[in-house]
Amino acid sequence: MASPAHYLAVDIGGTKIAAAMVSGSGQVENHREVPTPAAAPGQADLPARALTELVAEVVGERRLAGVGIASAGPIDNRAGTISPVNIPAWRDFPVVDAVSDAVGGPPPVLVHDSTAAALGEHWQGAGKGSSALLGIVVSTGIGGGIILDGHPIGGSAGNAGFIGHITADPLGEKCACGRTGCVETHASGPAMLRWARANGWTGGNTPELAADAALGQPIAVAAFRRAAELLAIGIATAATLLDLDRIVIGGGVSAAGEVLLRPLRDAVAKSDAPAARKLLILQASLGRHSGLIGAARYAQTR
Amino acid sequence: MASPAHYLAVDIGGTKIAAAMVSGSGQVENHREVPTPAAAPGQADLPARALTELVAEVVGERRLAGVGIASAGPIDNRAGTISPVNIPAWRDFPVVDAVSDAVGGPPPVLVHDSTAAALGEHWQGAGKGSSALLGIVVSTGIGGGIILDGHPIGGSAGNAGFIGHITADPLGEKCACGRTGCVETHASGPAMLRWARANGWTGGNTPELAADAALGQPIAVAAFRRAAELLAIGIATAATLLDLDRIVIGGGVSAAGEVLLRPLRDAVAKSDAPAARKLLILQASLGRHSGLIGAARYAQTR
Repeated sequence: MASPAHYLAVDIGGTKIAAAMVSGSGQVENHREVPTPAAAPGQADLPARALTELVAEVVGERRLAGVGIASAGPIDNRAGTISPVNIPAWRDFPVVDAVSDAVGGPPPVLVHDSTAAALGEHWQGAGKGSSALLGIVVSTGIGGGIILDGHPIGGSAGNAGFIGHITADPLGEKCACGRTGCVETHASGPAMLRWARANGWTGGNTPELAADAALGQPIAVAAFRRAAELLAIGIATAATLLDLDRIVIGGGVSAAGEVLLRPLRDAVAKSDAPAARKLLILQASLGRHSGLIGAARYAQTR
Repeated sequence: MASPAHYLAVDIGGTKIAAAMVSGSGQVENHREVPTPAAAPGQADLPARALTELVAEVVGERRLAGVGIASAGPIDNRAGTISPVNIPAWRDFPVVDAVSDAVGGPPPVLVHDSTAAALGEHWQGAGKGSSALLGIVVSTGIGGGIILDGHPIGGSAGNAGFIGHITADPLGEKCACGRTGCVETHASGPAMLRWARANGWTGGNTPELAADAALGQPIAVAAFRRAAELLAIGIATAATLLDLDRIVIGGGVSAAGEVLLRPLRDAVAKSDAPAARKLLILQASLGRHSGLIGAARYAQTR
């Protein structure tokens, strides 16, 4: 009897590289991760070796039904290359070839990590049943992935969904990207902490900020409200442009739960965008495995 | 010998209803149109009769390979109903059933008129070869349609692409829709004329305004520049969210050509959005038949 199909899933981020086997029904097995080696531009070998050793170890002697690679962007899914902002050693790194050389099996498919996370949530998590989903990852940065009728939307090179860098406030703060008033300027984890500290809050990290907000500490509450307001502008815009029916919020900051979601729902409702009226806004449910699960799903359905 | 496939295409707008036979290679034949009858809410019969008489006349005794209906929005492509803003007599009007009853043949498919226009341009016009296209119709209002890898993007009910009503300037002018700073507030034909007249221009319509701008008349030039600047914000946002590679501008105002396109390309470049750098911005090439051609294409490829 043939064993059930198993997929190799890889998730490449600026701080860690994760890999696992994922079953055809979305079970994550043999999960392993390594820190992304710090390497300067030109030193592509270091992170490449870490990646190929990791995937070889995760696969072992298993037969692969498919290989899905999720990566931080920008990616070029037609060329099979990635240039993750936070991995300066890699520019146009041929990740599809590297993984293929390391493990063989069917040709790997490449998907943006935010798109993979949204696809994972659509398949197995809080996005189930949505016909027009935007999954948002709120973390050190803000990314997003679009799933329409179950199909991930990549755009011309795979980077669609980049909601953190749409302009929410043309007169707002300068963004690290060089532009002005991007959604990310108020709504990322570091942005919230920076603002809270500048206004006298003395805690250390976003879980503490969330805990303080849950207790009604005014600066913490205001930090989440500011984040929610900018995020809501981005959501109203995306809902108008894509006729969305659901938003799923994941990433580290989303662990704050209702402390973030309540002001977010209020701000989206206040935006008064017709498309925003039917929006369901939910917390992601797959945790840190969403990208791996989505990468496997991408390999399964390509 | 079987005759080549022919599709019935219908294009329903607030001022006219058009229909034609479209060949499998995009040739428009037997084109006819009637003014959309003015009718109050509840008087759905009047426009319904105009529609069914028109399509029966266009089809005659022909055998249909498919039926594509493009309509002003909002539409509900799952229910097969339309509620065009400018046809108050129709709310949740079952247009798919009405056309099917009138002409028989394969079940009609329903698509937003802006999406149909973009699909037409992608198939036969200035959008050819794009892998991630936003077609924008600049006219009395501003609509848009998204075509990714040749597939029209509808969102949850078919209304995706609604770029005229994304917020470009949160501190901007009140929009007719009740919200503030929508792209449409500066960039629609009537908005440009209104602003030009308020600033002393004495011409009559957008072709005259375009002619004056081409001659360097300062108020006319400024009217197009203002329109271009707001439109560019919407384009930069859409390009970021959808990883676009091309924009095609159609609709009455686009007849202005370079008078609109030059400041538009400048403003998009100035936005400095990474996704905007690779954007090609072109004038639509199919004229007023783009919606019919796109509706036929939609029927052909569903």
